[in-house]
Amino acid sequence: MPLARIAHGGGVAYAEVGAGGYTLLAPGRETPWSDGQREKRGFVPASSARLLAPVSPRTVVGMAHNTGPADRELPPQAFLKPVTTISAPGRPIAVPEGAGLVEAEAELAVVIGHTARRLTMADALSHVLGFTVANDVTSRDLQRSDPLWFAAKGHDGWTPLGPWLVTPAELDHQGLEVDALEIRLSVDGVPRPPANASMLARSITECLVYVTGVLTLHPGDVVLTGAPGGGAPIRPGCRVIASVVGIGDLENPVVGADCVLAGEDEESVA
Amino acid sequence: MPLARIAHGGGVAYAEVGAGGYTLLAPGRETPWSDGQREKRGFVPASSARLLAPVSPRTVVGMAHNTGPADRELPPQAFLKPVTTISAPGRPIAVPEGAGLVEAEAELAVVIGHTARRLTMADALSHVLGFTVANDVTSRDLQRSDPLWFAAKGHDGWTPLGPWLVTPAELDHQGLEVDALEIRLSVDGVPRPPANASMLARSITECLVYVTGVLTLHPGDVVLTGAPGGGAPIRPGCRVIASVVGIGDLENPVVGADCVLAGEDEESVA
Repeated sequence: MPLARIAHGGGVAYAEVGAGGYTLLAPGRETPWSDGQREKRGFVPASSARLLAPVSPRTVVGMAHNTGPADRELPPQAFLKPVTTISAPGRPIAVPEGAGLVEAEAELAVVIGHTARRLTMADALSHVLGFTVANDVTSRDLQRSDPLWFAAKGHDGWTPLGPWLVTPAELDHQGLEVDALEIRLSVDGVPRPPANASMLARSITECLVYVTGVLTLHPGDVVLTGAPGGGAPIRPGCRVIASVVGIGDLENPVVGADCVLAGEDEESVA
Repeated sequence: MPLARIAHGGGVAYAEVGAGGYTLLAPGRETPWSDGQREKRGFVPASSARLLAPVSPRTVVGMAHNTGPADRELPPQAFLKPVTTISAPGRPIAVPEGAGLVEAEAELAVVIGHTARRLTMADALSHVLGFTVANDVTSRDLQRSDPLWFAAKGHDGWTPLGPWLVTPAELDHQGLEVDALEIRLSVDGVPRPPANASMLARSITECLVYVTGVLTLHPGDVVLTGAPGGGAPIRPGCRVIASVVGIGDLENPVVGADCVLAGEDEESVA
């Protein structure tokens, strides 16, 4: 079953996603990192819960130029996004004045389950808890004046994440290979040409080996693996859906900078 | 009194720094964010405690090209460092093979006390809890092949921070202005020419206004304000001291990549 993080009457909890709602995991075991049997504690109907970002990472890394064979000729390159960019399914993406052309990017996101340092091709995937969908919101105009991409990718709420985690075992069960997952992006119902994780210049495993050669990733940390389908322009009033077939759909409305309710982000970051 | 975060027989605690040791702040009040009177709970002699990084941020931002009048002609530019770079006074800086020319940079670091979003020149400093010293370790060689500075600044332990926090009130009490603090750097006892926060292209306040125009900073988050004195090369076997006069000295040895004891970083990051 997919694993979700939800807000409900009783607070915030991890839960298994099932028909019609969520089966809560035992309190005090709010993070699903353990490999052990997960104790169940009651059921919350879908109508009484709201999905949050499935994890609250301390480190969010993205892969740059990771699409197509030409990118393989370049050295690998990663970038950091602030944790304040992490946002929930359904939560508005705010586009501030002056951000210029802003694009959505649909990406397969890896969630770390075990502390990961200097991983090898052989052991990298055993450090993965699961996979989810990310929207790596990026201002193309700011990327030109901001060569380190701090403002171009770093605005609050610019990494919607969700709708939930799917474990490697669950993908296996569905007969899916993580390096061949279909990645989709649509804005206002208009789909971009579908893309596939197989179009990434470097595989999921290679990304993890590169990133953990520089820094240690901890449980709950997130690696965005790149946007094989490229970006799609978004502006206030749009609705954008990033999807990975076999994982789920991540839908967010787009608003102007002053339309986000205060306090909304505290909850999904905390 | 300066505020330190220490490891001692009873665990990890915030404490006031005094003659011969540390006066612990009340348990359950481990973070010194509150403006209220701080309750005292016992004394730990300096010999029984070890300094940790004074905060455990969720976001670490640095200012790029922030030295001298010419940099003022450029748009402001910030970058992110992973939280896994945060390290304690005395903890080794590990230089991995392949990192090429690695330099230490002594910087004044701002620690946020109150959630800070879109600060103005008038209110920015009221969101500051205090100031500390940072060593923004950077590989000059990697900066060339890694234009987003992920590997060039992102290796584990490459942001030693400390030795403690000094509040704005404490600086006032010493008759010091934050924008005129002297910043020093020495390697193996050889000092670099002294620099001063007044040499920064943009003031502390301007840095905070720029950064919080992009993202929200939370209590404990850290902004490195730039290295007015430039860098100094370091290699395994060196000892490097970054200092801000009126705050303190941050000393770290430099080692090869495989000389760091496992688990050391868990403590200062956690």
